[in-house]
Amino acid sequence: MARWEPGARERLQKAALELFSGKGYEITTAAEIAQAAGLTERTFFRHFADKREVLFTGQDEFTSPFLAGIEAAPQGATPLEVVSSAVIGAAGFFPVEKRAYSRLRQTVIVANPELQERELLKMASLAATLAAALRGRGVAEPAASLAAESGVTVFRVSFELWLADETGASIDDIERKVFRELGALTAVTAE
Amino acid sequence: MARWEPGARERLQKAALELFSGKGYEITTAAEIAQAAGLTERTFFRHFADKREVLFTGQDEFTSPFLAGIEAAPQGATPLEVVSSAVIGAAGFFPVEKRAYSRLRQTVIVANPELQERELLKMASLAATLAAALRGRGVAEPAASLAAESGVTVFRVSFELWLADETGASIDDIERKVFRELGALTAVTAE
Repeated sequence: MARWEPGARERLQKAALELFSGKGYEITTAAEIAQAAGLTERTFFRHFADKREVLFTGQDEFTSPFLAGIEAAPQGATPLEVVSSAVIGAAGFFPVEKRAYSRLRQTVIVANPELQERELLKMASLAATLAAALRGRGVAEPAASLAAESGVTVFRVSFELWLADETGASIDDIERKVFRELGALTAVTAE
Repeated sequence: MARWEPGARERLQKAALELFSGKGYEITTAAEIAQAAGLTERTFFRHFADKREVLFTGQDEFTSPFLAGIEAAPQGATPLEVVSSAVIGAAGFFPVEKRAYSRLRQTVIVANPELQERELLKMASLAATLAAALRGRGVAEPAASLAAESGVTVFRVSFELWLADETGASIDDIERKVFRELGALTAVTAE
C-alpha cells in the first residue's frame, strides 16, 4: 500500500469540517475523520498534529501572499500603504469558490472557544510577521506594530463582511472600502 | 475550619506566577500552587477552573473600567474619541505598583502558546464588548468594530511600551502618544 495518498490532506479537511459542523467539534475524533475520508488514522497524523490543526492551513502558506504584497509595495509607500498592499495582495487567497468552505469553517470556529483562540493566534502571528517586514523596510516602532495590527484588523473585518456578503463583492473591493473607513475614523479625531 | 480564606485568591495568583516563572507553566500543578499558597487544592478550585485561569482576572473586572470610560465620553464624540476615552479611562487599572507583577505575568504568557491564545481571547472579548457599546451609542458597522479593534490595538501596544518603560511614564501618557501616532499613520495615507 502506498504511504502517500494523493489529496489526502484536502479529503481530511473536508471530512473534518463536515463532522465538526454536523455532530460537533468536541466529540469528533481523529479516527472518525480519517474513516470518513476513507483513510487510516496513521495517515491523519502524518498530515496533522491533532484534530484542531485540520482547520488551520500552514501559517507560512497563509502568510506568504501577504508578504508578497509587502514586497510589491513601492519604496516611498507609507507604512499603512505597505500594509494595504499586503492585505489587498492576499485577496487571491480568498476566491469566491472558497467562500462556502470559509463560511462553514467560521461557523464551527465561532462555536468553540478553543478554536477561536487558535484563530486569534493565527491572526496575531500574521500581525507579528507584517510588523517585522515593516521594520525590515525601516519603519520604527510603535508605527510598525500599529500599522501591521491595523492591517490585520481591516483584513478580519473585511473577511467577515465578505462571508456575509450576498452581492458578489470581491474581498479586495471590501478591503479597499474598509481601509477608507479606517482612514475616515482616525482622520476625524485628528481635527 | 472556615471555608472562606481571606486573600486566598491573591495568594494563589502570587504563588502560581512564582511557580510558572520559576519551574515552568507546563509542569506546575494546581495542587502545587495551592500548597505554595498554604491552601488546599479544594480552595484552589473554588477560585479557579484550572491553573491557566489563575493568570486571568475576571473578564468583567477587566472590562468594566473601559466601559466606564465609554459612558464618560460626551454625546458628540467621534467613535475613536469614545474608544480613546475607554482606553485612557481604564489606565487606573494599571498603576505603577502593578508593573512588576504585569512584567512577570507577560514573560510567562509569551513563553506559552496556550497562554498567549487565552490572552488573545481576553483582548478579542474586550474589543467585542467595546464594539457593542459603540453600536449602543448609534455607531454603525463596520465603524464600530474598526474603532473598537483600533482602541484595543492602541491599548496592547501601549501596554507593552509601559512594561518596557524605564522613565516612569504612566500608561495613559503612553496611550495618548500611541493614539496620536495611529492618527498620523492613517492621516498620511488619506492624502
